[in-house]
Amino acid sequence: MNVPSFSVVTVAPSGARLGRFSTAHGVVETPAFMPIATHGSVKGIAPRELVELGATIVLSNAYHLAQRPGVEVVQSLGGLHRMMGWSGPILTDSGGFQVMSLQGLIQVDDDGVSYRSHVDGRAGRLTPETSVAAQEALGVDVAMSLDECLPAGAERARVAEAVARTTDWAGRGLAARRRTDMALFGIVQGGLDPALRGESAAALLALGFDGYAVGGLAVGEPPEDTARVAATSVGLLPADRPRYLMGVGTPRDLLTFVTMGYDLFDCVLPTRNARNGMLFTREGKLMIRNAQHARDPRPVEEGCECYTCAHFSRGMLRHLALAKEMLGAQLATHHNLHFYLRLMREIRAALAEGTFPARAAAAAGAWAA
Amino acid sequence: MNVPSFSVVTVAPSGARLGRFSTAHGVVETPAFMPIATHGSVKGIAPRELVELGATIVLSNAYHLAQRPGVEVVQSLGGLHRMMGWSGPILTDSGGFQVMSLQGLIQVDDDGVSYRSHVDGRAGRLTPETSVAAQEALGVDVAMSLDECLPAGAERARVAEAVARTTDWAGRGLAARRRTDMALFGIVQGGLDPALRGESAAALLALGFDGYAVGGLAVGEPPEDTARVAATSVGLLPADRPRYLMGVGTPRDLLTFVTMGYDLFDCVLPTRNARNGMLFTREGKLMIRNAQHARDPRPVEEGCECYTCAHFSRGMLRHLALAKEMLGAQLATHHNLHFYLRLMREIRAALAEGTFPARAAAAAGAWAA
Repeated sequence: MNVPSFSVVTVAPSGARLGRFSTAHGVVETPAFMPIATHGSVKGIAPRELVELGATIVLSNAYHLAQRPGVEVVQSLGGLHRMMGWSGPILTDSGGFQVMSLQGLIQVDDDGVSYRSHVDGRAGRLTPETSVAAQEALGVDVAMSLDECLPAGAERARVAEAVARTTDWAGRGLAARRRTDMALFGIVQGGLDPALRGESAAALLALGFDGYAVGGLAVGEPPEDTARVAATSVGLLPADRPRYLMGVGTPRDLLTFVTMGYDLFDCVLPTRNARNGMLFTREGKLMIRNAQHARDPRPVEEGCECYTCAHFSRGMLRHLALAKEMLGAQLATHHNLHFYLRLMREIRAALAEGTFPARAAAAAGAWAA
Repeated sequence: MNVPSFSVVTVAPSGARLGRFSTAHGVVETPAFMPIATHGSVKGIAPRELVELGATIVLSNAYHLAQRPGVEVVQSLGGLHRMMGWSGPILTDSGGFQVMSLQGLIQVDDDGVSYRSHVDGRAGRLTPETSVAAQEALGVDVAMSLDECLPAGAERARVAEAVARTTDWAGRGLAARRRTDMALFGIVQGGLDPALRGESAAALLALGFDGYAVGGLAVGEPPEDTARVAATSVGLLPADRPRYLMGVGTPRDLLTFVTMGYDLFDCVLPTRNARNGMLFTREGKLMIRNAQHARDPRPVEEGCECYTCAHFSRGMLRHLALAKEMLGAQLATHHNLHFYLRLMREIRAALAEGTFPARAAAAAGAWAA
């Protein structure tokens, strides 16, 4: 099989599409949600549980892994898949988002990024070339181009500069690529400005990537702006390549952006919120620490088939959260990932049978409202 | 089947024995090690994993559960088994050990124990009668009598007082018992004094319990003293009842005390040490945070069949520990419990086939030396 490759199976009237994204470690049916394994581990979830939950691709972070344990250490341990104990596809973010979120530790120039490690304070340097080389060395299936991602509210001139830099870096990364079995995605930037988004997308398309991501959204802007820019951007992307909307979102967001024609998603919400006691259910969010759940023998979500709901009550999950027992975070994460991944399965089933979005909305429940 | 009941299957020349302990939630083949689930959860390990690891009985703590979430809450959630998602036997400690370990928050008198909750500071009262009632309400299979447990080095007069109190409390607890399907164990105290141990055991035997524990050991005394007193004490206990040596120990300790004729064990070592990066292997202890493991692709223990060793390298476990990823503690705990429970299986197999201790020592490896 030629990898990477992408084929669209069917397209709904809205533009939502069912697809198959073939990578070196297997096929990802899209639309797909990628659980986040920043340091090579989905917090609290063993890889065999990811398989049980129906995850088909996970997201890790090349910047974080380069800091710790280091790219060469990952190589000594047989590459990222072997190290993680995960044999399915892996996508890594390059570090562009970290450029934004670790401001102060970082200086950006036209050639690349200088930083002080958030782990040990050592000075480091990241360029488009070293970023692609690191992701190739990690052995991932999908690499992201190094981009410059700005927080919401940046001035237009600054956004324009970031777009130009992101385009230049994308071309340099593409030229530096050696592994042809690794997909490389370009990242459209441009803030909330339609003209800059258009400029960014056109430049990336001219370079030619295996897939295209829309970055720089869900970084603090109002949700209407996210939706507006996402809608504009998706129309700029080719139909025959996977489209990845980075860092999104709630179950509602997933429905919205699948409807527009996005194929790939990642978000910390299901995992991070689980650790903070927020559980996703068809009825909406359930704050498990609330006193009202103390004696409640019902599962988190009635009818849910996940291991957590099949064996544990709301009362037990509350007890585990209050007692700070690790198992509480594990079980909550398990359920939340089940909720997200079930939603994606229902979305794909609805697209396959031509009932999108109705069937998918039922899986999202109150979140679809 | 009449429960509780205990039968000795075979006795080795040393006095080590293979037994069957039938409880309301199933049979425990002895010698057995009980993983610790103080708050109703073995830290980092889901109940289905306990089954996979071959755990047949777990230990929880009635004092802690009474503090949080509270006995009535556990009842609302269907009892401790249902709440925990664990359908096998459960033994609860009563709180005697907490009387010792939470000194300062606690006052002991002849009638019982007054304490301030370590959870919320509220004043509480524990008596032999309320302790048995609480364990019955939790629905456990094996309850421990409320005892007074002293730290190592207590004066003889103080130890004698604790023995007298423990005897009195044992009788009161026995008289208060209502559930006949719940085993109730007496706890032999007496510090390091053979005469007091003898006095304690004789008094408990006269009362008649379903099983007998030896308490107040492994509380800071030199290992020779532990072994000497354990050896004296085991001879005081009836052959037709399970014998539980509380709070013990290393793999070496398990071999030593099984050899003497003890049947049940519990210890925080495999679980707590796992969380601190100390792993048990046939070659001895492995400190996973050490730099030497950074690039080591080998499993924690070569040939080990546990999930951790089948899928993860020493290098990955070190990375997870240093990155403070929950999964690191989970995988380390999984391996350590596997090591302990495999050792107990090998001990039982050796007893069954008449090769004890040779076959068991092979399973313990360097720990048997």
